[in-house]
Formats: sequence, C-alpha cells, structure tokens
Amino acid sequence: MSLFDRVKECQRWERSRYRPFRVDGLCLGSVTHSFADRLKGFPAVFAVSSEAVELAPGLQGFEARSRAVDEVLRQLQEEGLIKGWREEAYPVGSSLHSVPLLKMERAGVPLFGVRAYGVHLNGFVGKGEGLRLWVARRSASKQTAPGKLDHIVAGGQPMGLSLTDNLIKECAEEAAMPESLARKARPAGFVSYVTERVEGLRNDICYAYDIELPVSFAPRNTDGEIEWFQLWPVAEVKARLAAGDDFKFNVAVVTIDFLVRRGYLGPDEPDYVEIVEGLRL
Amino acid sequence: MSLFDRVKECQRWERSRYRPFRVDGLCLGSVTHSFADRLKGFPAVFAVSSEAVELAPGLQGFEARSRAVDEVLRQLQEEGLIKGWREEAYPVGSSLHSVPLLKMERAGVPLFGVRAYGVHLNGFVGKGEGLRLWVARRSASKQTAPGKLDHIVAGGQPMGLSLTDNLIKECAEEAAMPESLARKARPAGFVSYVTERVEGLRNDICYAYDIELPVSFAPRNTDGEIEWFQLWPVAEVKARLAAGDDFKFNVAVVTIDFLVRRGYLGPDEPDYVEIVEGLRL
Repeated sequence: MSLFDRVKECQRWERSRYRPFRVDGLCLGSVTHSFADRLKGFPAVFAVSSEAVELAPGLQGFEARSRAVDEVLRQLQEEGLIKGWREEAYPVGSSLHSVPLLKMERAGVPLFGVRAYGVHLNGFVGKGEGLRLWVARRSASKQTAPGKLDHIVAGGQPMGLSLTDNLIKECAEEAAMPESLARKARPAGFVSYVTERVEGLRNDICYAYDIELPVSFAPRNTDGEIEWFQLWPVAEVKARLAAGDDFKFNVAVVTIDFLVRRGYLGPDEPDYVEIVEGLRL
Repeated sequence: MSLFDRVKECQRWERSRYRPFRVDGLCLGSVTHSFADRLKGFPAVFAVSSEAVELAPGLQGFEARSRAVDEVLRQLQEEGLIKGWREEAYPVGSSLHSVPLLKMERAGVPLFGVRAYGVHLNGFVGKGEGLRLWVARRSASKQTAPGKLDHIVAGGQPMGLSLTDNLIKECAEEAAMPESLARKARPAGFVSYVTERVEGLRNDICYAYDIELPVSFAPRNTDGEIEWFQLWPVAEVKARLAAGDDFKFNVAVVTIDFLVRRGYLGPDEPDYVEIVEGLRL
C-alpha cells in the first residue's frame, strides 16, 4: 500500500460503461447504460438515446427542470434505487459561478455523474516536523463512509451559499469553531477527480482550505456526525494514509495535497509526479 | 489581460504539427514534421517514418546513443538550426528517477519535445497581506527570455545532480545564498506543461520550492545573469502577472501556483478552476 493507491482510488472510471448526460445541449454529467435504460421509463423528463441522456427539451427554466427531475428521483428512491435521501439541493450547471440550470437532490447527483463541489479544511497546529493535524472519526451511523477518518471540517456545497459561508457554517456545526476563528482559513487550491463509488460516479471539486489553529482550540462536534477528534503528528497522518483506506477517499487525497503543498511529501518520493498529477483532472 | 492568459501561454500545442519521438520503444517526446524531415539526413541515428521518429535501433546503450545524437545536434548547430548551445547535458528517460536512456544537449531538448525538469524557488518575507516576494530581472544579454522578470532562483535540472543539490548550487550562483539558508527551502509540488515556444516544444516539470527568508538576507547575483533583485508586495506581483507577460512564461505559472497554494488567489476568481487545473498536465 502507498499514497499513490489513495490517488488511484480517485481515478476509477470505466468510460465505456457510461453515456453523456446533457441539459440544454451542455454535457453536465455521465450516466451508466443501465441507469439510462431505467430513465427510459420517464419520457416526459428524459430523452434517452443510445448515445446520450438529455433532459427533455420541453422542460425549460430552472424551476420546471428541477421539479421534473425531483419527481423522478423521489420515485426512484421509493423503488430503493437511490439511498440516503438528504433533502439537500445541489446546483447543476457548467460551473459554480454560472447560473445553475436546475437543482438536484444530493443523493441523486452521483447517478447522473454531475459535478459536485465541497469544502475541506486542513486544521493544524505548529509547524515544520512538529506540525500536527486535527483528524476526525466519522460516526458509525453516517450514511456515507461510516467510521472513516475525516478532516476537522468538510462538507458538500449546497445551492445558495457561497463557499466561504458554507465553510463557516460547517465549522460551527461540525467542530463548534467560532466564526471569528473560521474566517482565518485560507483557500489553497482544490483536488478534482471523476471516480466510481458505490453511490455512483463522483465528479467532484474539493476546495481545500488551510487553517492554523491555536493550541487552546479543541473542536467539539455539535451535529452528532463525528465520533471523536484527535491531534495527530503529520508523520502519523502520512503513515496512516499510506497504510490503507482508513481515511474517507476524498479526505485522503485532499490531505495528500496538503502534504505536497507543505513539503511533507517531496520529489524524492518515487511516485511523486504521478501522485501530484493525479490530484487534479 | 488576466492570470488565466499566463496559464494559456503554457497550453499552446498544435498536436497535428508533431509526430512522436521514440527511444527503445518508449515515446519520450514530439518532433515537428519539418524537423523530422531534416532528421532523415541522419539515417544512421534516426529512423524517420511518417508516423514517428525513432532513435535507430542499432544504437544501444547510454554512451552510444548520447554520442550519436550529440554529433547530429552539433552539425545542426553549425547550420544555425540550434541556437544558444550551452554545453549542458539533460537526461532523457521516462522519469527523473529512472536510469536515463541517453543525455542530450539542453539547447536541443525543445526540438525533440523531450521532458525537461527545473527547480523554481519562491523566496518570500513576511506573511498574510504583508508578504513580499523577491523578484529578479534577467540580464538583457541572456539567451532565453532576456529582461524578463524571474524567481529569486531558478534553473534547469542537469544530469548527475539531485534536485536538492541543484537547488543549492543555483541558490549560491544566482543569489549568493549560503547553503545553510538554502536548505530551509521546502518542496511544494510542481507545475507541468507542454507548450510551443520559439525554441521548440517545451515539455517541462518545474518543481516548486518555497523559502521564507530573513529580512536581513538580500540576494546578490554572482554569475552576471541577473540585473537586479527587488522585494515586491504580493499584491503587486499578482497585478503585474495579470497585466501582461513581463514575467518569464514558466516563472509566471509557478508564481501563480504559489498564489493559489497560499490563498492569494481564491475560488472567487472567475477563472479559478481553469487556472488551477491548467497548472499541471
């Protein structure tokens, strides 16, 4: 096992199993051929051909598109095809800055391979070889990745919030971090990937933020989603990442990106070029 | 003009103008069709077909390959096809960690589109909005990019030196930085690109290093290649990068990578995703 294995877990995408998902002529995702076949049952909402799945051209406007897709997804959930319904809307569009063409329930997003966005916070104390990173353990009852190791704070990007506001909200909910402290987080790039997971095709941009925390601050979970927080020496984080998949898959690569940016992983690492190039699409 | 324009300058590669350059069955570069035609004049060294240029299979071993290619390059230099001969050998192989298959004069490398490596040092003082970056101005007599703005220290990666040893050597030559100080530089990833320049196809990995310098240190050039060094506020560096191509093309993107990693360029920038994804192949 090695750090490169963590990166390769974000590069599993057998393209021949998929066809494009288009809205208004724009390719915004990818659906498996079998899911495309299931969508043939909703001809008023999806135009399914052997080449692509398109949102029915008759559906115009954000509200009409969102409502029509939502009805389909709720039926698929009743059939058990969609698990872990969250009642949380994700924007679907060509970028986070463009006006979304529709919104879609988060649990349905991986079935359409639509790009999703998230914020990931690397929280650390100290510097140099003495740097320690806050590590969280996800509750055993979480729908996705139960019991996996996590960032001090991380969350998906819902409709209608800026990245910064979302980060501050998640800092409060997940770690009881006051806003005045959370605002010290600095953006540090992102990790992006398209990869097959049990829930579908994950096509994500994980925006990375770094925050140097005072020794006096200890995170405290307020939403029941975290079992514990621990402060780990950076060498221990690196060793655990290399040893196996104890960290949630995307937390692993965002943390590896932190190690690269901060010099804890250097060009002497044999797979350095492949690891670093594998952190972004 | 914008920062994204600097990134796009590293993405100019009209692939249809090129065919692969292979050594021992491995594709190690790309040559223009016109250069391939010129190489037909050396049938003992290059096997030129309409699909590819291959190093003649009869040439086996590092020394024989290197000598044969060197003779061709020296003749092309006499004909004026290769400018700026440096008498500096670059390794040619599948990675910096693998045993090179041959060595090649640096001035010839872009004609074969072979991957080259370099080290780039971001030298800074202070932190937060008060951070200042050391900026160098290249001498007007330099062969490549005369008069352009540069890193405090940067250099190509020759045969037979480790990246760290090369960085320390360049720190001494270009900035009179003592080894004890230079060793505080930390690796921070790399920028990679394939792009067409006047000298040929640049296929580079620029390893980025960061160093926080004491206010008491002032760089002093010892090899006559730098006209001056100045300490610029980070906002001024960013504005100058966005305003035009005053910085050498690859120094620009390695500096943009620094701005991204350190949070001086954030996701609110409209082209953020395209800029960040464009920093690596």
